[in-house]
Amino acid sequence: MEIDEIKTSYKLVSREYQSQNSVIRVGKAVFGSLDIPVIAGPCAVESYEQLLEIGKGVRQAGASMLRGGAYKPRTSPYSFQGLEREGLEFLKAVGQEVGLPTISEVTDPRAVELMMEYVDVLQIGARNMQNFALLKEVSKTSMPILLKRGMSATIEEWLMAAEYIMVGGNEKIVLCERGIRTFETFTRNTLDLNAVAVIKQVSHLPIIVDPSHGTGDWQLVNPLSRASIAVGADGLLIEVHNNPPEAVSDGPQSLTPKNFALLMSDLATIGEILGRQVSKEKR
Amino acid sequence: MEIDEIKTSYKLVSREYQSQNSVIRVGKAVFGSLDIPVIAGPCAVESYEQLLEIGKGVRQAGASMLRGGAYKPRTSPYSFQGLEREGLEFLKAVGQEVGLPTISEVTDPRAVELMMEYVDVLQIGARNMQNFALLKEVSKTSMPILLKRGMSATIEEWLMAAEYIMVGGNEKIVLCERGIRTFETFTRNTLDLNAVAVIKQVSHLPIIVDPSHGTGDWQLVNPLSRASIAVGADGLLIEVHNNPPEAVSDGPQSLTPKNFALLMSDLATIGEILGRQVSKEKR
Amino acid sequence: MEIDEIKTSYKLVSREYQSQNSVIRVGKAVFGSLDIPVIAGPCAVESYEQLLEIGKGVRQAGASMLRGGAYKPRTSPYSFQGLEREGLEFLKAVGQEVGLPTISEVTDPRAVELMMEYVDVLQIGARNMQNFALLKEVSKTSMPILLKRGMSATIEEWLMAAEYIMVGGNEKIVLCERGIRTFETFTRNTLDLNAVAVIKQVSHLPIIVDPSHGTGDWQLVNPLSRASIAVGADGLLIEVHNNPPEAVSDGPQSLTPKNFALLMSDLATIGEILGRQVSKEKR
Amino acid sequence: MEIDEIKTSYKLVSREYQSQNSVIRVGKAVFGSLDIPVIAGPCAVESYEQLLEIGKGVRQAGASMLRGGAYKPRTSPYSFQGLEREGLEFLKAVGQEVGLPTISEVTDPRAVELMMEYVDVLQIGARNMQNFALLKEVSKTSMPILLKRGMSATIEEWLMAAEYIMVGGNEKIVLCERGIRTFETFTRNTLDLNAVAVIKQVSHLPIIVDPSHGTGDWQLVNPLSRASIAVGADGLLIEVHNNPPEAVSDGPQSLTPKNFALLMSDLATIGEILGRQVSKEKR
Repeated sequence: MEIDEIKTSYKLVSREYQSQNSVIRVGKAVFGSLDIPVIAGPCAVESYEQLLEIGKGVRQAGASMLRGGAYKPRTSPYSFQGLEREGLEFLKAVGQEVGLPTISEVTDPRAVELMMEYVDVLQIGARNMQNFALLKEVSKTSMPILLKRGMSATIEEWLMAAEYIMVGGNEKIVLCERGIRTFETFTRNTLDLNAVAVIKQVSHLPIIVDPSHGTGDWQLVNPLSRASIAVGADGLLIEVHNNPPEAVSDGPQSLTPKNFALLMSDLATIGEILGRQVSKEKR
Repeated sequence: MEIDEIKTSYKLVSREYQSQNSVIRVGKAVFGSLDIPVIAGPCAVESYEQLLEIGKGVRQAGASMLRGGAYKPRTSPYSFQGLEREGLEFLKAVGQEVGLPTISEVTDPRAVELMMEYVDVLQIGARNMQNFALLKEVSKTSMPILLKRGMSATIEEWLMAAEYIMVGGNEKIVLCERGIRTFETFTRNTLDLNAVAVIKQVSHLPIIVDPSHGTGDWQLVNPLSRASIAVGADGLLIEVHNNPPEAVSDGPQSLTPKNFALLMSDLATIGEILGRQVSKEKR
Repeated sequence: MEIDEIKTSYKLVSREYQSQNSVIRVGKAVFGSLDIPVIAGPCAVESYEQLLEIGKGVRQAGASMLRGGAYKPRTSPYSFQGLEREGLEFLKAVGQEVGLPTISEVTDPRAVELMMEYVDVLQIGARNMQNFALLKEVSKTSMPILLKRGMSATIEEWLMAAEYIMVGGNEKIVLCERGIRTFETFTRNTLDLNAVAVIKQVSHLPIIVDPSHGTGDWQLVNPLSRASIAVGADGLLIEVHNNPPEAVSDGPQSLTPKNFALLMSDLATIGEILGRQVSKEKR
Repeated sequence: MEIDEIKTSYKLVSREYQSQNSVIRVGKAVFGSLDIPVIAGPCAVESYEQLLEIGKGVRQAGASMLRGGAYKPRTSPYSFQGLEREGLEFLKAVGQEVGLPTISEVTDPRAVELMMEYVDVLQIGARNMQNFALLKEVSKTSMPILLKRGMSATIEEWLMAAEYIMVGGNEKIVLCERGIRTFETFTRNTLDLNAVAVIKQVSHLPIIVDPSHGTGDWQLVNPLSRASIAVGADGLLIEVHNNPPEAVSDGPQSLTPKNFALLMSDLATIGEILGRQVSKEKR
């Protein structure tokens, strides 16, 4: 369909524009197909040793990509801000060591070029979903982009942020639902699985779910991961830490490598019944 | 554990008070076990013929209970307010005809006694979750109560509403998540599946999910039903109408009997993989 | 204008239906005129002595009406539920003693008749804004009704609740904004003064503001009261307690009679500049 | 008080750290004193002629500063993105012509240096409140910063964003409340005047209010401006357009210069009664 015939506010990212699912490949991870790749790793890279231990653990359990924050957007200036460039170096080294592609968050348009030397996927975090200078910058690259939903963004605004990237020339976009802000205080955020079903209807872009941030509680990660796959998600993003109580950030929502392995086993079963494979090729 | 040792605000409904799941039986429907009963029917009873057609359809597809509103709490005084007593008569008659227990919403403490003559389960709707006069009235009966979450109730407030019923002497409570109010406009409400996982952790009460109200869009009912079961729900409440475009209320979120049958078939598969049975005994 | 020409969902309560402000008189208190009556008193009636002390204090400071809860809708069944009938007796007695009309919350349609013997205004609380059985019951009386906004009600739903009362035959309705539920945790609720300006545009009904519940913090009551008058409110509802730290409910948001007197003095000044009188006749 | 004795998460911006109000001067505009400066101008600079007409109008009515967007953060990539550098040139020229300091939004850390050549105050918009790269960049300058609240930011997060700027070395911060996102659809946002009273309690920073974005409806700007001053705001930010129906953005919430003059006259009266001057020196 021609762009100017499309009646929604988002155009290039709509199903009207492209009826078939977009398929984004990163190494062996394929988003938007029958596969369900799982991205795993710590919130923040803390040291080479920490990351290697986690990297080995998640690789063995079947993860398809290694995540790790080097530039951390923290609410407080007094919180750990990340290892920055050194963090990226550790991430790249461990990724190569364990044989997994890597992803890390970019928070500054000036850092895009640097990041591209170290990671395979650029993550745009929830706080930067409408950082249009950053969206325009990554739209000029050929890097796959993981675009998280803003914490109080409507689905339409989220698709419009993706539209910025696609209009700029980069079609390799994976959306990521990570919970919205509500009045509820039991959970850190309210993971919105409705959004997954809506996105699959109205857009051709793949969508994955981050139940770790979405709930803020590692005990809820397993049931919400199962539900994410059942609702139709194209992948998961799971926080894994070798020693959650000592994590510099997001400890309470991080799984141990051992619990991550249990999760992967559960997901394989539920994926199968839906005709999908959770990282089967990785075993 | 003794009540006064329990540190949460809710006591009798907590897992500390009772570690085992409460099991509520209504006819062959069992809530809180490995079974996953599905309650189905129209938002409002419109006529005997309408209800009979729907009742036969959902019965055949495997529903465990027939729902139908007779006293409708409508935002506008100019909207259809329900057939009232006549609606209850139709509901009872059709329930007997097709062999299903029935459920309908009670909105007035003065109507509790009347309702008990006609239905097997009393529903407390979202708008009445903190109608304490009504909660106290139903707490004195021995009827099973379906307690919907208020549209902006926290999980704790919801459990406290259940506590009112349990303190009053009635332990037959089934909770029902039906979507919360957020800023999102794509869906009518935001179905909160986090709440299901939280409830299963902190309470022994069974919890079911109403994806019809929770999303407001029949096309989202199937994926969110699958997700509800995957996250651990003990049952579903699905709006079914023989002619959704002509429904006096909630047409856009109602399934046809035919689509309901497809849904039941999908759910059986996903239930099985989780070691649960979606209404197997009904076939 | 004829009802069926009015295009909004609410009809009788709209400015289209009646362009002039509705004026509701209760004793010397006039809502919807240039006067700005202030209703004051404790959240809950605790004893005759308590209420008398508070009643004398607020009367002297210029309050136009005495409030006091006798049937309290409490989140927890373990919280103080009110003195019930005895509370109403104290309220009536103190009202007569200090020469002020009285208001108390009705939570049960079966209690409407009883309440009418004791109070001059019936309050419908936030939790009961869509308790349609209750709305219909009070619509049959000739009592003035104070209708609080539900904690997550849209302005339109609130007006529709008022429409229920007006359709039923009772035109004496005063709306009361009392804060909505948001993600903010600094305040108990988020007092929505936008709603006051909107209501004045679209409806002829008077609207007052309850900054005590709206903020949950007595230190915020003064600035938000000033703002309420500046935005166009037709009155205020202020929680006053003789000993806030010992109050059985809502202590943190209650003013002492002394601070209430200071508030009244501030409000008189700001009211004057807007061409309105804050309870001048009461001095 | 020493920083490490302060118990809140925000330190340098707290009242504990500095009990006296911070006073920020920009030309004759003084924020944080008894003055109430009003910033006015169009959402977007559209042409020199447009801006000059508006600039003259608001100057004559008593505005203390001229606003105008040159780099517009728009939800859609297909919306007008601003005149960019040319817009800044027009803004600087008109500011000099009418004798008003200027403010415009900066959205990219790479643009801070350029912006400093053209404007007197840098605005950080709601979408960038947690754009930490941008906050760190402006913290290195000596420019006054107007920091808008994020559309779903808690008050604490907002103060933490200000803390980033102050930790970086820039103390010239003015906060701006601009409405939060709620479920309400009558208004574009819900202007949160509670936040003004809270900020005045817990922080020494001046806070102004933007009722134009906060409500999205020009008819609500006047009552909410009055309320903002009554609640204790240190200034206002008002959108003014010479031809609202033809505005490229935010027309529905813009005042004409004539209505702006009426607003200024109303505000002078209410300011006076509170012992404050709304731009008196400007006449």
